[in-house]
Amino acid sequence: MLTPEKKQEKTYKILFMPFNVSVDVPAGTKILEAAKKGNLPLKASCGGQGTCGDCVVQILDGSYTAKSSAALSNHLISEGYALACQTEVNDNLTVQLPQFEELMIKSDVGSKFFTQEENISGILKHDPVLRSVTLTLPAPTLEDNYSDIKRLEREFCKATGKTNPRFTYSFMTKVAETVRDEDGRVLAIYLDLPSQPIIVDIAPASTKKSFYGIACDIGTTTVSLYLVDMSGGRIVDTASSLNQQIKCGEDIISRINYAQKPGHLNELRDLIVLTINRLIDKTIQKAGIPHENIHYASFSGNTTMIHLLMALEPDYIREEPYVPTFNRVPLFQARDLGLRMHPEASVHCSPSVGSYVGGDITAGILCTPMLKDAKRTSLFIDAGTNGEIVVGNKDWLMTCACSAGPAFEGGGIKCGMTATAGTIEKIAMTAKGDIIYNVINGVKPKGFCGSGMVDLIAELYVHGYIDRHGKFRESAPKERICRNENGPAFLIEEAKNTFWRKDIVITERDIANLIRTKGAIFAACSLILKNVGLRFEDIDALFIAGGFGRYLNIENAIRIGLLPDLDRDRFHYVGNSSLFGAYLILLCEKNKELADEISDSMTYIELNTEPAYMNEFTGSLFLPHTDMDLFPSVRKLFDDTNNDLK
Amino acid sequence: MLTPEKKQEKTYKILFMPFNVSVDVPAGTKILEAAKKGNLPLKASCGGQGTCGDCVVQILDGSYTAKSSAALSNHLISEGYALACQTEVNDNLTVQLPQFEELMIKSDVGSKFFTQEENISGILKHDPVLRSVTLTLPAPTLEDNYSDIKRLEREFCKATGKTNPRFTYSFMTKVAETVRDEDGRVLAIYLDLPSQPIIVDIAPASTKKSFYGIACDIGTTTVSLYLVDMSGGRIVDTASSLNQQIKCGEDIISRINYAQKPGHLNELRDLIVLTINRLIDKTIQKAGIPHENIHYASFSGNTTMIHLLMALEPDYIREEPYVPTFNRVPLFQARDLGLRMHPEASVHCSPSVGSYVGGDITAGILCTPMLKDAKRTSLFIDAGTNGEIVVGNKDWLMTCACSAGPAFEGGGIKCGMTATAGTIEKIAMTAKGDIIYNVINGVKPKGFCGSGMVDLIAELYVHGYIDRHGKFRESAPKERICRNENGPAFLIEEAKNTFWRKDIVITERDIANLIRTKGAIFAACSLILKNVGLRFEDIDALFIAGGFGRYLNIENAIRIGLLPDLDRDRFHYVGNSSLFGAYLILLCEKNKELADEISDSMTYIELNTEPAYMNEFTGSLFLPHTDMDLFPSVRKLFDDTNNDLK
Repeated sequence: MLTPEKKQEKTYKILFMPFNVSVDVPAGTKILEAAKKGNLPLKASCGGQGTCGDCVVQILDGSYTAKSSAALSNHLISEGYALACQTEVNDNLTVQLPQFEELMIKSDVGSKFFTQEENISGILKHDPVLRSVTLTLPAPTLEDNYSDIKRLEREFCKATGKTNPRFTYSFMTKVAETVRDEDGRVLAIYLDLPSQPIIVDIAPASTKKSFYGIACDIGTTTVSLYLVDMSGGRIVDTASSLNQQIKCGEDIISRINYAQKPGHLNELRDLIVLTINRLIDKTIQKAGIPHENIHYASFSGNTTMIHLLMALEPDYIREEPYVPTFNRVPLFQARDLGLRMHPEASVHCSPSVGSYVGGDITAGILCTPMLKDAKRTSLFIDAGTNGEIVVGNKDWLMTCACSAGPAFEGGGIKCGMTATAGTIEKIAMTAKGDIIYNVINGVKPKGFCGSGMVDLIAELYVHGYIDRHGKFRESAPKERICRNENGPAFLIEEAKNTFWRKDIVITERDIANLIRTKGAIFAACSLILKNVGLRFEDIDALFIAGGFGRYLNIENAIRIGLLPDLDRDRFHYVGNSSLFGAYLILLCEKNKELADEISDSMTYIELNTEPAYMNEFTGSLFLPHTDMDLFPSVRKLFDDTNNDLK
Repeated sequence: MLTPEKKQEKTYKILFMPFNVSVDVPAGTKILEAAKKGNLPLKASCGGQGTCGDCVVQILDGSYTAKSSAALSNHLISEGYALACQTEVNDNLTVQLPQFEELMIKSDVGSKFFTQEENISGILKHDPVLRSVTLTLPAPTLEDNYSDIKRLEREFCKATGKTNPRFTYSFMTKVAETVRDEDGRVLAIYLDLPSQPIIVDIAPASTKKSFYGIACDIGTTTVSLYLVDMSGGRIVDTASSLNQQIKCGEDIISRINYAQKPGHLNELRDLIVLTINRLIDKTIQKAGIPHENIHYASFSGNTTMIHLLMALEPDYIREEPYVPTFNRVPLFQARDLGLRMHPEASVHCSPSVGSYVGGDITAGILCTPMLKDAKRTSLFIDAGTNGEIVVGNKDWLMTCACSAGPAFEGGGIKCGMTATAGTIEKIAMTAKGDIIYNVINGVKPKGFCGSGMVDLIAELYVHGYIDRHGKFRESAPKERICRNENGPAFLIEEAKNTFWRKDIVITERDIANLIRTKGAIFAACSLILKNVGLRFEDIDALFIAGGFGRYLNIENAIRIGLLPDLDRDRFHYVGNSSLFGAYLILLCEKNKELADEISDSMTYIELNTEPAYMNEFTGSLFLPHTDMDLFPSVRKLFDDTNNDLK
């Protein structure tokens, strides 16, 4: 019997790495659409036309039809790279998202600094609020037949000297079985809060891998996380990735704007929670730990990021009089936010100072010696997407914020990127104009990160290839200047030597962008010092944190006017102090109190309402500055070389 | 073109009332299966053979094929009643489950007793831990630009005199918008805990219906609930229903047994949570209140019921040395248990004394004047499925428990039922042997509840129709004695006059069952008094709580030997004291402390290990007792009537 042939819609499974997320889609779907369906961030700034090359993926397994494209060299195509917007699904595929390769934890340098007790204001001792105690409960009898909780409480108070503990619900549900299965030898995991201890979990006394914490810095561009063994305070593993909110806007203001549409606030919350959960998954899978064994999270981040993490309306942050919902918050629970940890795990957020100076800064100050001495005054600069400046000492602290933009983290820079494998992180130029660079992991270069950008602009300037406005000069080597629809650009590496087989360049637009960013930061530093009647020379130490990859060349940062022209030994690049500060709070409860004191004692200056700021900013839109007297070492360099750029 | 005819499976929607739960099933499904699919409790003790008549439902809307059945009269069939196991679905149907008609709140009588301050040990004043305060926040300015939380905290502390409040997560998510939408006029709802106030919610200051609580007694058979307006403490509505766990076993021990199989503990938890949630839904829908506005729950129940509510392993309760997980628990959150209230609503459970004397008893004692006077000694009897006895006064309290069984709540009694519309709650017999009865709501009778059973056995005994063992005597009127597969039975009402068109009878087995139940309770009372060296005459007041419907006839309860033969004015039927005690705890925080003191001060006697109990019990398996000297008024009655039953 004849039956009408029905079009049977076949579906295929796309496994997206490194997230290990599977998405089922009908045959013929574009990989870009599949990624969207799986809520996986895959940008396509050309809107899926196949021209921008943003959505490049690598197909690790499965068959597909390779398509040549202007945005993709044949060499890459032969290695399995494909444009997600141009590739149809006709098989089960395993797809790698190269944008999400592991970021280099930017505290590698910093952490060496941090781990010396004399270098920081925080305490390095392992004395956390989340603790454990081994208890031995005698078996109950008809004479001693108190409830399990009562008998555990009795031994707990005996062992710790504490009184009147509280219990979480999930602890309650496990206590009867655990005590009996282990013949009374158990590990009680508790929060040693000053008001009342809270017993949060119970485990066999013999268990290793019982209780862990995470410290996490939520940056506007990058999210970085430590997995910490709370029994000794050791950092077990680290991970970081782009903040997936980035598809909703690159800076704070554009995220706040995005949040104004219905449903968008929850979407932003979901994206940051997803980002964090994937970092958690990655570290605990490697360490072989169940989610349930993470009992504490210490977050730091700017005020907007923490508001978005909690799905709090951020609109009032950007509107005069710039009032956030909170500066200091109590401990929440992981389940409040949907974090994949023990559902009743405590969540701490570093206290913020105001709408534009967040917990990343109070945590960061913990990682400097600023509070150790009243005689030495320091300047702290966190040059992330938002730039924050703190000046002060043991007796006083003053702070302000400026909108630096995401340039140093690769945002808006043609070949800019955050620091991952393939990133150019150091650049030098020989006298002949040859370029020498250092690539993370030693692979073929893909682009450059913040520290590479600082090097590059400094070298272009010192060699006389760009003028004080950042425009290319006649003296720039002709063979390196190229022009296309993005305007003039300087060639750093030819396509044939790069990973993507595309030229790595820096455009005049990029340089202008970076000058605005460094100008905003320097202007904020100048202004805050003037406010307290100090000059740069009065600063005894200068701490630089933020999105510069692993190596910031201080000399070059001075040459471009990002940092003031002080004795070089006063500078300290501290890396991701926000993350390390969050770790310090996890490690030792006293650091939490210290962070609260920092947040309470800081005076905030609102630059938005400070007319002098615009003058300072305008003066800073030069290399290194309109006022060359501020940069005597740069002037001297040009004097020595008879260069006409002073 | 020919296409093969495909059998299109039609589905229909069955709406089950009074739960308002819809279930979609394919055509031809039996209603009983649809009920199972919807997790609706509908018993069928014959296994769906159409013989027991347990699964009778009433079809309110939709067409179906009426089937005659031995278990269902034509009269009922004509009124839309049908056996769920015999009726196939071939239309969208609305089906009423008659077993779940609203139970009569059994505290109707009791609450009159409770509402007199001199009658209870608890405090009737409205002074709860859940409170509200109206605040007016001035608009922020550049000079006063503290965070929303800080500004609210400032006004809160000013208004209440409290310091350092904590905040819940959900409060945080609402504060910015609410404060701005209401121009700063807001209602802060907070827990006035002695350690630290916790602000749990925020509402416009103008809102009525802002914050509510529930008080709930979780009985083994019946669950009863008050919805309480926490702004004044008024009981807004009441509801009760069968505990849906009943399908997993009628008494505590059978539930604990049931819980031993994998997954069953969670099933039991889900069933009780479902029962409570449906009672919540019912009351708040009527009152027009969203779930989110219920911020507090005060539960009382026996130790097993509270363990099952929390999905705590109950096995150790029944095993020597009878150790429960807890007696006193901290406040949990509604979301811990899946209760449909504000997710962060606080859940309090009355403290228990041990495995067999639970929070229903500590709450119950609050509703008696036992703690008011050291000179007057009282006896408190809670005759639910589990029987608990307390004896004592202001200076001391002693307690024990016995397994009474669910007979007085209708369990295991052929025509027994809990008190709903159609229940015979009072029975009297004239000298000629005519039966007069009182039916709740005045409809045709369906069966009888505990108070009706007490009346009936007393009347049968006093009229000489049953002997002291509860067996029918020759003198019983022949026309009322019937025999079937259940053995001999006494006819109370003929089928033609009853709701179900089936004879309402009491069988010899029923009577034996009730004698065991009353015997267990009386034996426990005797034993506990002997333990403290008291006789019944030393008891100044006797309080009876529990599952007897609205009217317990004390005279009849003495005649059958359920209660001791004391001056009648010493007896007080207090109804559902567990529920009212839970309400008192909701109403006034001091009552919570009082309940804790009661639980701490009570001495528990374990009858399971007391050999003398069996002797007492054996002596109590007669009407009224083997020792007639204990019941002089009953002896005198028979002396007066020359009856030979003394």
